[in-house]
Amino acid sequence: MADSDLREVKLGSRELFKGHFLHAFCDQVKLPDGATSAREYIVHPGAVMIVALLGDAVGEVQVVLERQFRYPLGQVMIEFPAGKLEPAEDSQRCAQRELLEETGYQATQWARAGQLHPAIAYSTEFIDIWFARGLTLGQRQLDQGEFLDVFTASSTELLQWCRDGQVTDGKTLTAALWLQNVLMGAWALNWQTSVAADAPR
Amino acid sequence: MADSDLREVKLGSRELFKGHFLHAFCDQVKLPDGATSAREYIVHPGAVMIVALLGDAVGEVQVVLERQFRYPLGQVMIEFPAGKLEPAEDSQRCAQRELLEETGYQATQWARAGQLHPAIAYSTEFIDIWFARGLTLGQRQLDQGEFLDVFTASSTELLQWCRDGQVTDGKTLTAALWLQNVLMGAWALNWQTSVAADAPR
Repeated sequence: MADSDLREVKLGSRELFKGHFLHAFCDQVKLPDGATSAREYIVHPGAVMIVALLGDAVGEVQVVLERQFRYPLGQVMIEFPAGKLEPAEDSQRCAQRELLEETGYQATQWARAGQLHPAIAYSTEFIDIWFARGLTLGQRQLDQGEFLDVFTASSTELLQWCRDGQVTDGKTLTAALWLQNVLMGAWALNWQTSVAADAPR
Repeated sequence: MADSDLREVKLGSRELFKGHFLHAFCDQVKLPDGATSAREYIVHPGAVMIVALLGDAVGEVQVVLERQFRYPLGQVMIEFPAGKLEPAEDSQRCAQRELLEETGYQATQWARAGQLHPAIAYSTEFIDIWFARGLTLGQRQLDQGEFLDVFTASSTELLQWCRDGQVTDGKTLTAALWLQNVLMGAWALNWQTSVAADAPR
């Protein structure tokens, strides 16, 4: 399928706003029919999300989740650990760092599952989806001003919460799709043994 | 689990920017430890997404999908039909309107599956997830300056594209979670017979 009937071409760009977090632009674009229009969007550094699996020789797989107050929605959300990439930071190192900082867990094995784009109409953000296993629990190191509770749940519980509306965070719902298919054996992961996040490379 | 250790309290708010599409605010907030911080976010009217099922007496279920150029990412994305709520518009009416406008399909049966929040760190946006069946194809009515291709795919194809990275749109990945569980019989939908989108109420 060719894209020439769909593509938009940038004619110019101006910064709308640069805050501590939000960085917005408005571009003038040429539409496929030759008309011009404007596109407003947020530039985002990208992020990672971690599905950390807790093995249990007898029971089913447990995952590490967080409860975090999300100000734009005014409510506490259930989510997988996640965080933004630092400048020039490697995606896997970011995943190791965020998991350790937010939950205290380190993992011996990592697998990159895929990527999602949370808000394609108005943000450049991508989120790399990482799975982790071989967990050991240490001390978490939350950023100043960061408040979140860490807990574990079974994959069955998580999927029930996705169905019942207790989980509505888009990235976590996407991770649930991955988790379900990995656990069913339908989607394979390419596990790699990894050094700890704070070990020298 | 109590939320008092997580909740942030609004102290004040100022508008950062009001564009044609983006409307951004910065609020001063009191953190759980009593410190103050700032929260920047986009106010969004909310949206709907439609998973329209094409019955086939012999084969597997097909879904109606779109290919649309998404300027912030600079690429054509595979997505379920979706659109923003008009002021005071009912969610189901919006779903009926968007499906008809973008694809030309009308449906006799509708079921609200759930809701997702695509970007909980910086947007108030919610997306209501609707399923539709009993489809008849008419003429689509794209908005001026709107360009998108409509096509159908089997649920198997869609799930392969989610696994392989050809589908990375977060809302579509969430819809795939719903579709997979509905088709497996794990998650039930409450189907309602509905009048057509352009019929008088």
